[in-house]
Amino acid sequence: MRLLLLSNSTNPGEAYLEWPKAEIKAFLGDRPTCAAFIPYAAVTFSYDEYETKVAKVFAEFSCEIKSVHRIWRPAKAIEEADIIVVGGGNTWRLVQLMREHNLFEVVKRKAEAGTPYIGWSAGSNIACPSMKTTNDMPIVDPQGMDTLGLVPFQINPHYLDAHPAGHGGETREDRIREFIEINSDVFVVGLREACLLRREENQLNLIGKNTARLFRKNWITKELAPNEDLSFLLESTIPQVPFY
Amino acid sequence: MRLLLLSNSTNPGEAYLEWPKAEIKAFLGDRPTCAAFIPYAAVTFSYDEYETKVAKVFAEFSCEIKSVHRIWRPAKAIEEADIIVVGGGNTWRLVQLMREHNLFEVVKRKAEAGTPYIGWSAGSNIACPSMKTTNDMPIVDPQGMDTLGLVPFQINPHYLDAHPAGHGGETREDRIREFIEINSDVFVVGLREACLLRREENQLNLIGKNTARLFRKNWITKELAPNEDLSFLLESTIPQVPFY
Repeated sequence: MRLLLLSNSTNPGEAYLEWPKAEIKAFLGDRPTCAAFIPYAAVTFSYDEYETKVAKVFAEFSCEIKSVHRIWRPAKAIEEADIIVVGGGNTWRLVQLMREHNLFEVVKRKAEAGTPYIGWSAGSNIACPSMKTTNDMPIVDPQGMDTLGLVPFQINPHYLDAHPAGHGGETREDRIREFIEINSDVFVVGLREACLLRREENQLNLIGKNTARLFRKNWITKELAPNEDLSFLLESTIPQVPFY
Repeated sequence: MRLLLLSNSTNPGEAYLEWPKAEIKAFLGDRPTCAAFIPYAAVTFSYDEYETKVAKVFAEFSCEIKSVHRIWRPAKAIEEADIIVVGGGNTWRLVQLMREHNLFEVVKRKAEAGTPYIGWSAGSNIACPSMKTTNDMPIVDPQGMDTLGLVPFQINPHYLDAHPAGHGGETREDRIREFIEINSDVFVVGLREACLLRREENQLNLIGKNTARLFRKNWITKELAPNEDLSFLLESTIPQVPFY
């Protein structure tokens, strides 16, 4: 399986999808490709706009973007694609519409058979077993929280340490601690901005400028260094990791 | 119906439930009362701890707190209570366990029949028609997002304006704009810290130090002043509000 799972599309003040360009290019290679793009996480802007914005960037990688919203049978478009690209926005809306269009089965099958998958934010979240570590507001009922399960752990995209002054609510770390309290056998990777996880078969690496934060119930929380080998997270049994 | 819906229990640096004490006292009156407390939003601390903490504060109002987790039939405890108190924490967990214990029907019936209801954070969220404006991480599947519907609009508790530097995710306002895009006939009140909504029959007022923010699709977003009369939000038809 080949996955590129980004925390975010864009760092503040930078051009759209600027920071991960070199990584996406390296991941896609030099051959011209055609990608099926899933835009359903967009809520306050149109799928056409979303497609145009993404297509402009991916053209630099000789990768043509075809958004599934323009196609009568979205599942067929995914079936025929060289690459699957899932954009960010609202994870709840994305999962709701992927379910309505029966896309979970075909995306999972294609990705497991080797079709490269690129996702950011909501698109990274749904590569996990469930969407239960999303930060998004549940604006719709997606009729179930299970997602693709292309990795056996959970990602929390846009992981952040800051806690606004005067705010009486929970921090992001508090939220993840609640998750692992109930879901005690699951790892959660808090993926900070400008970071991504790259999976190449049984190899998983953290790539980016920032460290990531790894949570599991009863385990000491660990900062993961850029380029760190995280392949143990792909094992289905509890890994015996020497640093714990 | 008599409701006291708080954004948060505690301001940073203050004692537990310090800021709303005068309002809770005025709401409860002088007569000694006995309240059923629903602690199910607690995830990373025990229901016993939660009950002790809340009981200590409510004792100052001559209000005895009995947490439903210590009772074999929680619905019966609610049936017999003078007051219903629902604490904050994780809204998903709260809704899951209230559903498992069949508490929605009895709480709704009692509140509609006049039993005073006090909630904060998650406890305010579930007084709305659904939990779809929560900020919390969906750590469990609550088997449906519909909640009490004691008011016809949505509350977003802990509403905040701050956006952490370097964060590439959505702001709270972005999230609410996504909600009203899909749920176009619903008002959302962004309730800032140290604010509450008090309902007395068909009268609704904002109380607290901060303004609140009112959202609805295609309406100009409005700052609501402390003590402002918000009774129009209780009407089920689209209100004709002069300031719009």
